[in-house]
Amino acid sequence: MNRRYSPHCEIEGVSIIIIIMAALSKIFAGSQFNKTNSAVAVAVVAAIYWASSRKGKKASESGSRKLPDVPLVIGEQGEKKEKAAVDGVFLRRIYQILKILVPKFFSPEVGYIILVASMLLARTYCDVWMIQNGTAIESAIIGRSIPLFKKHLFSFIYAMPAISLVNNVLKYGLNELKLRFRTNLSNHLYSQYLRSFTYYKMTNLDNRIANADQLLTQDVERFCNSVVDLYSNLSKPIVDIVIYVKKLTGSIGAQGPASMLAYLVFSGLILTRLRRPIGKMTVQEQRYEGEFRYVNSRLITNSEEIAFYQGNQREKATIELSFQKLIEHLRTFIIFRFSMGFVDNIIAKYVATVVGYLVVSRPFLDLAHPRHRHSSHSELLEDYYKSGRMLVKMAQAIGRIVLAGREMTRLAGFTARVTELMKVLGDLNKGKYERTMVSAQNRDRAEPEVPLIPGSGTVVEQDHIIKFEHVPLVTPNGDVLVKDLTFEVKSGVNVLVCGPNGCGKSSLFRILGELWPLFGGTMTKPKNKKLFYVPQRPYMTLGTLRDQVIYPDTLQDMKKKGFTDEQLLAHLKEVQLENILEREGGWDAVQDWMDVLSGGEKQRMAMARLFYHKPQFAILDECTSAVSVDVEGYIYNHCREVGITLFTVSHRKSLWTHHEFYLHMDGRGSFEFKPISEDTVEFGS
Amino acid sequence: MNRRYSPHCEIEGVSIIIIIMAALSKIFAGSQFNKTNSAVAVAVVAAIYWASSRKGKKASESGSRKLPDVPLVIGEQGEKKEKAAVDGVFLRRIYQILKILVPKFFSPEVGYIILVASMLLARTYCDVWMIQNGTAIESAIIGRSIPLFKKHLFSFIYAMPAISLVNNVLKYGLNELKLRFRTNLSNHLYSQYLRSFTYYKMTNLDNRIANADQLLTQDVERFCNSVVDLYSNLSKPIVDIVIYVKKLTGSIGAQGPASMLAYLVFSGLILTRLRRPIGKMTVQEQRYEGEFRYVNSRLITNSEEIAFYQGNQREKATIELSFQKLIEHLRTFIIFRFSMGFVDNIIAKYVATVVGYLVVSRPFLDLAHPRHRHSSHSELLEDYYKSGRMLVKMAQAIGRIVLAGREMTRLAGFTARVTELMKVLGDLNKGKYERTMVSAQNRDRAEPEVPLIPGSGTVVEQDHIIKFEHVPLVTPNGDVLVKDLTFEVKSGVNVLVCGPNGCGKSSLFRILGELWPLFGGTMTKPKNKKLFYVPQRPYMTLGTLRDQVIYPDTLQDMKKKGFTDEQLLAHLKEVQLENILEREGGWDAVQDWMDVLSGGEKQRMAMARLFYHKPQFAILDECTSAVSVDVEGYIYNHCREVGITLFTVSHRKSLWTHHEFYLHMDGRGSFEFKPISEDTVEFGS
Repeated sequence: MNRRYSPHCEIEGVSIIIIIMAALSKIFAGSQFNKTNSAVAVAVVAAIYWASSRKGKKASESGSRKLPDVPLVIGEQGEKKEKAAVDGVFLRRIYQILKILVPKFFSPEVGYIILVASMLLARTYCDVWMIQNGTAIESAIIGRSIPLFKKHLFSFIYAMPAISLVNNVLKYGLNELKLRFRTNLSNHLYSQYLRSFTYYKMTNLDNRIANADQLLTQDVERFCNSVVDLYSNLSKPIVDIVIYVKKLTGSIGAQGPASMLAYLVFSGLILTRLRRPIGKMTVQEQRYEGEFRYVNSRLITNSEEIAFYQGNQREKATIELSFQKLIEHLRTFIIFRFSMGFVDNIIAKYVATVVGYLVVSRPFLDLAHPRHRHSSHSELLEDYYKSGRMLVKMAQAIGRIVLAGREMTRLAGFTARVTELMKVLGDLNKGKYERTMVSAQNRDRAEPEVPLIPGSGTVVEQDHIIKFEHVPLVTPNGDVLVKDLTFEVKSGVNVLVCGPNGCGKSSLFRILGELWPLFGGTMTKPKNKKLFYVPQRPYMTLGTLRDQVIYPDTLQDMKKKGFTDEQLLAHLKEVQLENILEREGGWDAVQDWMDVLSGGEKQRMAMARLFYHKPQFAILDECTSAVSVDVEGYIYNHCREVGITLFTVSHRKSLWTHHEFYLHMDGRGSFEFKPISEDTVEFGS
Repeated sequence: MNRRYSPHCEIEGVSIIIIIMAALSKIFAGSQFNKTNSAVAVAVVAAIYWASSRKGKKASESGSRKLPDVPLVIGEQGEKKEKAAVDGVFLRRIYQILKILVPKFFSPEVGYIILVASMLLARTYCDVWMIQNGTAIESAIIGRSIPLFKKHLFSFIYAMPAISLVNNVLKYGLNELKLRFRTNLSNHLYSQYLRSFTYYKMTNLDNRIANADQLLTQDVERFCNSVVDLYSNLSKPIVDIVIYVKKLTGSIGAQGPASMLAYLVFSGLILTRLRRPIGKMTVQEQRYEGEFRYVNSRLITNSEEIAFYQGNQREKATIELSFQKLIEHLRTFIIFRFSMGFVDNIIAKYVATVVGYLVVSRPFLDLAHPRHRHSSHSELLEDYYKSGRMLVKMAQAIGRIVLAGREMTRLAGFTARVTELMKVLGDLNKGKYERTMVSAQNRDRAEPEVPLIPGSGTVVEQDHIIKFEHVPLVTPNGDVLVKDLTFEVKSGVNVLVCGPNGCGKSSLFRILGELWPLFGGTMTKPKNKKLFYVPQRPYMTLGTLRDQVIYPDTLQDMKKKGFTDEQLLAHLKEVQLENILEREGGWDAVQDWMDVLSGGEKQRMAMARLFYHKPQFAILDECTSAVSVDVEGYIYNHCREVGITLFTVSHRKSLWTHHEFYLHMDGRGSFEFKPISEDTVEFGS
């Protein structure tokens, strides 16, 4: 299994191990470091780098056969252009999002930010106190003084709860801040995502964002965690450095801390430069991860078609290819981070420590230095341990700041994703969308003479009438189904809509329901609330039995409209569904209604829902196929009684008597709109 | 926005901040810790705990209205029973998975495990060396000796590359191990998931696992990362302790390290006991996260129905409810971890340090101790700094082991999820599945007289015949569509299948294609490979133009069968699709074919695919609706010429001439199977 993926890896893995073992045995043979060790180390790094680049080359040579460079998912290619570096764009973006995370100045968020800051400060003071107390305990041990030892040890024991409290309040504050940020950002995004039909448009009209659910759930969380982590990773060392600089300037003068800060700036610049590819690689990793997840969810979405074709081996190859691309990228990334980390560690950790030693040693080693000219050995000791440890802590803090740059690059990646989502949401709410279009050169249906511009038609709102004037039926990817549709239906005139699959029936209803943009002409119709669509696949919402009848109303809406449970029961009786009330355990029973109701029960439930809402017009899309003839007849008569005008999609001859007109589309661009007479045998044949 | 979620939180958040600020100001006023501080700290923790439990109570009181305790997703309730504690079950499970992660002893995985172990050992030696060298540098500084300072500082500088190398090889090894584990586990799971129709069954026949894609992509990664992190988090401190115990026993005797190890066992037992709720809470968190993701992807899956119903406000309420449940749980979890962390820190970090001090101070403070009876001050100093620092490091290592228990609990949660997936995959491959069934008391169609047992029918393989004998058409959730279906079709006899939506047409084909289990009777049919289904929604695979024609074959399969691109072109010409070859850029062009082809082009492509595969029987499921009449006629004639027998689902009268029989199902449990004659006007009306 493994062999297929990495035939060369095994050998190289082993060779790497051998090289390293040899190097290590040499290092530990003398148990002492010397100049040759560094040479060996550098040689090992170079060897690994060479091996990995050779492997990369090999992979790309054999890649023409096994790993096509073309992306599997065309739609996501656009993301490539998105920059994810730490630059002005990133700062502007993060500022935009921060305004959402912290909505106003006097908010709990600001309170928690201050809490975290003060806990960070408190922790640094705790650290300083622990250094001093630790030195005191050690002095007592070396001075062999039991009373002093006891005194300082007990003050440590007494302090423990307070220090632990500071640490944990800090953690609590950070976690609570993450949670609040996530709540704020999620609420903001959902308010946009669930405004009118944006959630529908994002999936069906636009293909910039393939996995909205993942972005909304996971990436939002990651982004918020990353922001808060960066806040604490940056502010803690900054606070530390300020405090230590203050304390150290008092004891060893300003020159020492100043030279360390100079080193911070210097090393920060170098490492930021070196780290630049990480941002790009993170974005690439996200892209491959997204692609991998996409091929997986695509398999689930199309599982029936694929199962019928027995395409599992073919799909397995696709998934494996996507997985392999991801893994190879991750491996390259690991190797890059390995060589990067080697330099990182040396510059940010060890050289910083050396600088610390040099700085702290100056007043001691300069025998002419005024500070220690007359100090005794124990005075020197105490002075060293106070200022020395602080310097080491400061060097560590500087290292942490430099390393935080890495976190920042990661955050830039998440920011780019969240910003992309926000941009698409904004565009969709403004009616703009982007999509791959059917290749325009050679359509196989009606050729449009005028260019198709989405949203170029006119919608007129008027009660009790539905009128299409020269409306083209066009799918969002530009496939023209009917070039020019014109018909008029007034309240009281039921219409049978027919034609083969894909002829444009659903497209007609999507345009009528304003889910799809109008590509031209004029459409006159009542408000959306006075139109009701009963879909082919009956949809049951998550919730109680009552929710199924009144959907999409809530219990509050229902009460506001003055409905009672008795009236709902009357609607259930109209569709002969009163038995399920007792069977499922009353109006407040919660079930997986999609599974628990049979096909016919779901269809009748949808009709009860229609009766509850009593719209001016209703579209019945083959939604009584599993309902018995007498119930069906009753339903149609009831609709006429209460004044619901129907558009019915059905091939059942028994339904003809309930309709006055028929609209037939033949799937090849033509349509007929005619009254149903005795002579009508079959539509359009 | 926020106010709706947490009306009490703001006040409590502020009150918490005030309490803590007051406590801190008291602590830092004297800048010295004393007994009252601990009292204050304990009081603060108690206050927070009281506030949180009150809030919890309040939430559960108002919960009856706002937050129903019933789960939104019924299917996932079963997971509740799944234990996720660190116990025997967990160890058995992890052992099962480890056998997949490390397939055999002489494998690169074992090599990397050894590499990581040796790097951990090397790092401990590096730490020891750094302690010794650090002490030497500090002695030189305090002793004001420039030559010694230079010597030791330079040996540190020379050692830097080697130490940095050890650190980074360690990280590299861990990352590579994670990657290899992920590869092995993914390959294992995919080989099961993509065997025959398991991927289809998991989504359509079983409802134990709601989000297979997330499990396969994300949870596998998390599990592998968690395993490897635990390996390094446990083995590093264990290696450390062994080394330090050895070194310390030599210098200060066995009693010191022994009492520290005793403390490890003692504190480990206490903390494991205290931490027990974390496992349960992690599983609960995963459940809520899963539910939240489920309501999101459910919205996307049903976006069209919801958009037609204008149900966005109702769905928003569902998503907000799910999000609120998640956030409230996370908040409870944070508060629990806060109080837990308070105890954790004290026991694992600070008390361990106190024990360290007590142990290290014994030989110094006991003036009669033989070790230091005649030591000078500087000898004492050096001895203290060697053994003292090692003891501190050992105390830290002990703390890390104790804290690793937390990681273990997390891993138990991931293990439970991966095991559940493996179990379901195993069950499905054995033909067992679990699903919510239609409430049996009151079916609205035919009452079954015998209990329905999936898989109880007999499948007989025979060429050139399709025969159903007393087969009931039953959906996987037990909804009976046709009680007893019997008909026989031989090669050369085309059948028109008709009836309203939901009458059982698709169910018939799913049973015929062996996607759904047989609930009884006998079905005689050729091998699955000799049956071909052309679905309603044309499916285009990810890949080249050639892949679309030969799907599900690969290029290799095609060559093996002796096909050339010229023959493929002939098939394209048969469906008048030869123009797209040039338009899209040749056979190897990669496009988003689902979007780039128009509806009619996709249908004709599916027919070209049928001609390429030339099966004995083909099911055409309304798959020529957007194809012009002459092309359609050509297609039917061509099928008869090459000997493909057809089952057609269509309402087009023009197709009657191509068929000999019709099978009509009325959607209410009855069916007709009769020859098509001149008299046939419409089926079953």
